[in-house]
Amino acid sequence: MPVYRAPLKEYRFIIEEFLRLERFAEVPGYADAAGETLAVFLDSAARICEGVAQPLNQPGDLEGCRWEAGEVRTPKGFREAYRRFADDGWIGLALDTVYGGKGLPGVLAESFAEMLAAANLAFSGYIELSEAVFSALHAHGSEAQKRLYLPKLASGEWTGAMHLTEAHAGSDLRLIRTRAVPQADGSYRIHGTKSFITNAEHDLAANIVNVVIARIPGSPEGSGGVSLFVVPKFLPQADGGLGPRNALECASIEHKMGLRAAPTGVIHYHGAHGWLVGEVNHGLRAMFTMVNDARLGVALQGLSQAEVACQNAIHYARERRQGRALAPAADLPDPVPIIEHPDVRRMLMTMRAFTEAARGLGLWVALQIDLAKRHPDAAERARADRLAALMTPVIKAHFTDWGSEAANLALQCFGGYGFIEDTGVEQFVRDVRITQIYEGTNGIQSLDLVRRKLSLGAGAGVREFFALLGQSIAAAEGDAALADIAQALRTALSSLGQATAWMQQRAGGDVTAAAGGATDYLRLFGLVSLGWVWLEYARIGAAAVSQGRGDLAFHRHKLALGRFYARRILPEASMLLARATLGAADLIELAGEDL
Amino acid sequence: MPVYRAPLKEYRFIIEEFLRLERFAEVPGYADAAGETLAVFLDSAARICEGVAQPLNQPGDLEGCRWEAGEVRTPKGFREAYRRFADDGWIGLALDTVYGGKGLPGVLAESFAEMLAAANLAFSGYIELSEAVFSALHAHGSEAQKRLYLPKLASGEWTGAMHLTEAHAGSDLRLIRTRAVPQADGSYRIHGTKSFITNAEHDLAANIVNVVIARIPGSPEGSGGVSLFVVPKFLPQADGGLGPRNALECASIEHKMGLRAAPTGVIHYHGAHGWLVGEVNHGLRAMFTMVNDARLGVALQGLSQAEVACQNAIHYARERRQGRALAPAADLPDPVPIIEHPDVRRMLMTMRAFTEAARGLGLWVALQIDLAKRHPDAAERARADRLAALMTPVIKAHFTDWGSEAANLALQCFGGYGFIEDTGVEQFVRDVRITQIYEGTNGIQSLDLVRRKLSLGAGAGVREFFALLGQSIAAAEGDAALADIAQALRTALSSLGQATAWMQQRAGGDVTAAAGGATDYLRLFGLVSLGWVWLEYARIGAAAVSQGRGDLAFHRHKLALGRFYARRILPEASMLLARATLGAADLIELAGEDL
Repeated sequence: MPVYRAPLKEYRFIIEEFLRLERFAEVPGYADAAGETLAVFLDSAARICEGVAQPLNQPGDLEGCRWEAGEVRTPKGFREAYRRFADDGWIGLALDTVYGGKGLPGVLAESFAEMLAAANLAFSGYIELSEAVFSALHAHGSEAQKRLYLPKLASGEWTGAMHLTEAHAGSDLRLIRTRAVPQADGSYRIHGTKSFITNAEHDLAANIVNVVIARIPGSPEGSGGVSLFVVPKFLPQADGGLGPRNALECASIEHKMGLRAAPTGVIHYHGAHGWLVGEVNHGLRAMFTMVNDARLGVALQGLSQAEVACQNAIHYARERRQGRALAPAADLPDPVPIIEHPDVRRMLMTMRAFTEAARGLGLWVALQIDLAKRHPDAAERARADRLAALMTPVIKAHFTDWGSEAANLALQCFGGYGFIEDTGVEQFVRDVRITQIYEGTNGIQSLDLVRRKLSLGAGAGVREFFALLGQSIAAAEGDAALADIAQALRTALSSLGQATAWMQQRAGGDVTAAAGGATDYLRLFGLVSLGWVWLEYARIGAAAVSQGRGDLAFHRHKLALGRFYARRILPEASMLLARATLGAADLIELAGEDL
Repeated sequence: MPVYRAPLKEYRFIIEEFLRLERFAEVPGYADAAGETLAVFLDSAARICEGVAQPLNQPGDLEGCRWEAGEVRTPKGFREAYRRFADDGWIGLALDTVYGGKGLPGVLAESFAEMLAAANLAFSGYIELSEAVFSALHAHGSEAQKRLYLPKLASGEWTGAMHLTEAHAGSDLRLIRTRAVPQADGSYRIHGTKSFITNAEHDLAANIVNVVIARIPGSPEGSGGVSLFVVPKFLPQADGGLGPRNALECASIEHKMGLRAAPTGVIHYHGAHGWLVGEVNHGLRAMFTMVNDARLGVALQGLSQAEVACQNAIHYARERRQGRALAPAADLPDPVPIIEHPDVRRMLMTMRAFTEAARGLGLWVALQIDLAKRHPDAAERARADRLAALMTPVIKAHFTDWGSEAANLALQCFGGYGFIEDTGVEQFVRDVRITQIYEGTNGIQSLDLVRRKLSLGAGAGVREFFALLGQSIAAAEGDAALADIAQALRTALSSLGQATAWMQQRAGGDVTAAAGGATDYLRLFGLVSLGWVWLEYARIGAAAVSQGRGDLAFHRHKLALGRFYARRILPEASMLLARATLGAADLIELAGEDL
């Protein structure tokens, strides 16, 4: 049976020692997010994720969702579990209190999001999508729309779904064909078909609030002719009750490699009632705000599957005994637990070197996103916004690529048992695979990084981020315990700096050359960013060890992992620099038909 | 619907131009393996693999095998297809003609094996295991055993299975507990339970010939107390007919991530009749000969899934249109086929850079294995044997790791469609995953390489292999069309040489240090080996282009891919050298419980 224990020590370490959230007491919602309150929050979050969501993960995968005559039944237990999460107040943790949100710092909400995704990725999506729809309507909806929909989404009475993709329009939303025909009363009737829509039909909640992009006839072609609509499954009445069923139906659900407890459906609109959200023809821009926020969530999903897979691999590697110790050790039995084999260690430490730093970086990005919205100082808001915008594609792609790699390493630690459904580790490999694709494929993230994010604020975001890393390195170089990590990071940062300059020169002109190296460049960016987190962790750890305070085993582990990352992972940087700056001439030399 | 076309041009290019099989006309079976005969063989092989095996691949995965009261039913159509392959003479292609084999060169048999695995990996195992059991009995069985079993295995009337693993003994066969109790008539009765046994029970053939490792009571502990037995499902009668059912039963089959059309079962022995194969307590050595041969087959399985996944990705990338061309090109439509996007190109060329060279290297190893058995000259046999032994763990691990990577890249090219079962690409990702594990995990391959294979013949094997590469480089360096590839390979070979010296110094002493870098070392070895193949391909291509002969588009493609490999893949070498030689101190610094 697969296991999961929320890494509470890690969250507290990150929030209290790495992010030092107490620095932001003046930010609304942050004053009370430390010490005992934080501990209670994390404990309660862990309890419900471990106790209610996790036990349904493997059965949910085996049973899957069932489509019957347009209705979707979620796996056994999901309804009750969803009700528990809603009743206990776990929906809308960071959302606006005016409309029923809890107003907690985003860092806490995202810590919970990672735990819930680790416990049950499919289940977590029902809550995550409701929050995304809340955010979209909160940012772009009218006051009446907010009053009507947001409290129901925040309470969990209703859930949300986002309808973007059509069969021929996945990465290219210019091509969408779904039509919204204006009505005399100011509403619209929606006609068309959407594909690959997650959670648009299920039995967890009384109503589903769909936000849909569609074209109003006569609008310009392309992305400038797309508008956003809210299209509820049941039409809300003035008294808050539910009126008639709206004219959209789930025609089928897909059979998928993973994430089988979340329905992915084809949705037909037969003149469904919809209401414009925001301005006519501004739909794609509005949608992208929402998608951008959702990318942090997907990054954490990648991390979550790496974390739970790694936990299971460590658990197994401690129990499973195969082979002799290579160097005879008096205290090791024969056969030894496989965790004693250097190659198994290498796999486990590689996973840990990713998960522990990714959690820190992910929550650092969550903090920037939050500060960009809530900080009382406008300059701080702008700076945080630049950093969040820059880092969002980096962590979306890097964490999900690494999430897949880590889940596969975990499976490998299980040997033949890993290929069997019972142990549960192959489910993590299957489930995490979609995170490299949805909310913008990782290839698209890398184009977003080199074509848009590097030039934000005339490059201010990337300059600010590199300055932050430079300060960390300068502060650590004089410390003997940290010098090797600092030096490795300085070398890698220099590679990233060179690659960045190369990309910035091309991003406005020879875009094809930039695109040829974009994936390697993004990986380099992620690699160096996680190296920065390791240097910071090691700095905190070295101080604790030298002062003999706190949990010394915990800090020694951080120092050891930091050195591991610097020695074994960071050296990838020079190769990535070389690859990122090769251009694209060799990629497009052959005609497509000659490949 | 997934597609597969056997890459016949590639096979002919490799066999005729890279391996130049006509050089070995004096080797039995080789005289007639060229020109029109070769073309007819490859065409017929392609026809049955594409026409009979491939259409059953996706339905076979969906239906899976069913266990009922100890019997296993294979998916619909498998019986008829198996009969076709047997009747048309596709079993035992390279096996001894004295016992019903076809005596073809191993290179041809392995070309067919790759095609069949690409068409239907699960189906291919039924034939591959029969051939492995044939080889084991051929090498170690008595003449009577050979006469009794081999012709039936070669004709396909009976199939074979290998019973090694027990639940607690997968990578560590010292631990096996299955007992073989001697009987007065010289036979044995087998008691115990085996796990993860492939194809030990199914409905394709009248009988199943199981080879089983077990302990004779009183034998020494550990690997020196294990013997090999043949344990047929039905007891053969003197007249060649089938007698009573033997006392072994399939207690259950596993639910697996992939390869669902091949049963993986738990087998109980209740005093089953068995007969000793070879000498008492020499079973593990005998088994390892067989397993070693099987590792070439698994390497080609890794390649096969990369090949079919890549074909499907290319097919999709030519049809699917999303996004604008980055650099406006008059001849490209909007939206463009995604094959025009540099990042999609990068993925496709990365796959192709692996598959095309891996096929050459795999068939080169097949040639060495064959020459080691058949070459009339003893020195040539010994040399070929050293090269085959050296390269077997390299290609087993490298091709299956790359097979997984390539299948995942192919899935990524499909975007959201890749995650859906219909397109078939996610099946390749699931199916190929076991190849990194079975026949010895890839971690074990790397230990085999550094602990045993580098020191074979006092290092003669590795010296001979490096000399071969050095000759290729020297021959190419003066040619302007090849200089960049040759130079990149020289640099990478130098890294491999340094890492090899480092490993050889430690393999006899500080084994832990060697083990800490073994996986990175093996990857470096595989990387450079494929680089050698690319240099050879490019040399052939450059000659053809400069002479204006042959299929120029084909040869230009080879030159372009060779340069791609040299520029974008080979630079991994210096990173791998650094990692491979870090030792293991940082891996074992933390206690297992502190990870």
